[in-house]
Amino acid sequence: MRNIKLTLEYDGTNYAGWQVQNSCQLSVVSCQLKTIQGIIEKAIKKIIHEKVKLIGSGRTDAGVHASAQSANFKTDSGIAPEKLQKALNAVLPDDISVIKTEETGADFHSRFSAKSKVYRYTILNRPFRPAILRGAVHFCSYPLDLKLMRKEARVLLGRHDFKSFCASGSNTKETIRTIKRITIRKLPYNLSPIIHNLNKFPLILIDIEADGFLYNMVRNIVGTLIEIGRGKFAEGSTKKILLARDRRFAGPTVPAKGLCLLEVKY
Amino acid sequence: MRNIKLTLEYDGTNYAGWQVQNSCQLSVVSCQLKTIQGIIEKAIKKIIHEKVKLIGSGRTDAGVHASAQSANFKTDSGIAPEKLQKALNAVLPDDISVIKTEETGADFHSRFSAKSKVYRYTILNRPFRPAILRGAVHFCSYPLDLKLMRKEARVLLGRHDFKSFCASGSNTKETIRTIKRITIRKLPYNLSPIIHNLNKFPLILIDIEADGFLYNMVRNIVGTLIEIGRGKFAEGSTKKILLARDRRFAGPTVPAKGLCLLEVKY
Repeated sequence: MRNIKLTLEYDGTNYAGWQVQNSCQLSVVSCQLKTIQGIIEKAIKKIIHEKVKLIGSGRTDAGVHASAQSANFKTDSGIAPEKLQKALNAVLPDDISVIKTEETGADFHSRFSAKSKVYRYTILNRPFRPAILRGAVHFCSYPLDLKLMRKEARVLLGRHDFKSFCASGSNTKETIRTIKRITIRKLPYNLSPIIHNLNKFPLILIDIEADGFLYNMVRNIVGTLIEIGRGKFAEGSTKKILLARDRRFAGPTVPAKGLCLLEVKY
Repeated sequence: MRNIKLTLEYDGTNYAGWQVQNSCQLSVVSCQLKTIQGIIEKAIKKIIHEKVKLIGSGRTDAGVHASAQSANFKTDSGIAPEKLQKALNAVLPDDISVIKTEETGADFHSRFSAKSKVYRYTILNRPFRPAILRGAVHFCSYPLDLKLMRKEARVLLGRHDFKSFCASGSNTKETIRTIKRITIRKLPYNLSPIIHNLNKFPLILIDIEADGFLYNMVRNIVGTLIEIGRGKFAEGSTKKILLARDRRFAGPTVPAKGLCLLEVKY
């Protein structure tokens, strides 16, 4: 059997996340929600007439975007990767695009082979709400102290128990992860496509790379850093929150639409 | 009477352009299309209980965006500009945002006072279609020779008769305009919000500043430059097209969604 790897870009706005799921599992009729995995599996079936199981590098939540999600599936089909990519892009809806297709070794597993993942959270920091990028940024009207946010973010680098930043409903037992990199950058407004630099109000890009992420971890870390940046949490809060190992100490979960899975490293 | 100036950002995707218009003027029932001007006039009426006429710096076509369109209206209302801005942003749909509100001199006229306008056209130049920015970029899969495009664009600088780049249906008689600046830049992919630099495929930003624009002029110039960049039109074409004063010689009109009114200078 061949093992095919897909690299995927998607706008998560209109999806119930990556993973195939039923919206009403307890009812008699199971109604399936529209998911990225489900839509792509259907598209593959249409092309190679084979029901495959598409394995993603991880779930992305409802509303979360990806510019390079990785996924793989096993198949008996002899279709050439380039041909599959073209056929998929012709069949898939316009908010999902296959940006790379390749044959990989039999052992490759999108999730278990991943060494690290990079997520980007984008904040629009100005006093009035966005119109053009509204589906892809989190609007924050408070002035943010980026220097302090960077200083506090450094505390999270390395191997720690991130239980405080894990969604409370999660049933993950092992909450130790290693954050390899956190960068907080201001993007000059005129460098953004279609956006003008009126008053030079900035977009803020927060990139986090880790060997793995707990449920809502990026969105809870960013929510905490925003509280620090706007002066609601004091300097030194990050360390206290980290040591508390209790979700209630961290900041709020920021909206899904600002989050994008940027890269999966193997 | 006071004269209020608004600076507006909008996503033009769901609108029939800037200007209020009737879709079926010849029929007995006149049905109004959804336009930016119409929606904002309604919002102003809701707030200050006065029917105003909103004058834009110019029309933007159906599907064209703006990051800083200018508009003004006369009013007897004593409302403070900051209060009006907040109220408008609370009432307007999420694809229109007021980014500045100010009181100006009685003589100010958004259209007649404008010295120049800047439009940006954004091209996504890679072999596979976009998912995330699909509503704000024009997808072009051919490799483009930017150096040649820049050289040919320089021919357009200055005062010329741009009749060849004016939509054929237009009834404008005076087709002489002055282009003050054309820049063609590659945007490193990793500097774009939410977008990853996989393979470093670039976004191309074409900015054009002129004292005025003919109908479809930017989209016809960009369509011509793309034909040159992909090798379909030979070097020297721009000069020939310009001198021909005939729309049939220029390249195709590129889609509205890649176009954004970036700035109006006074």
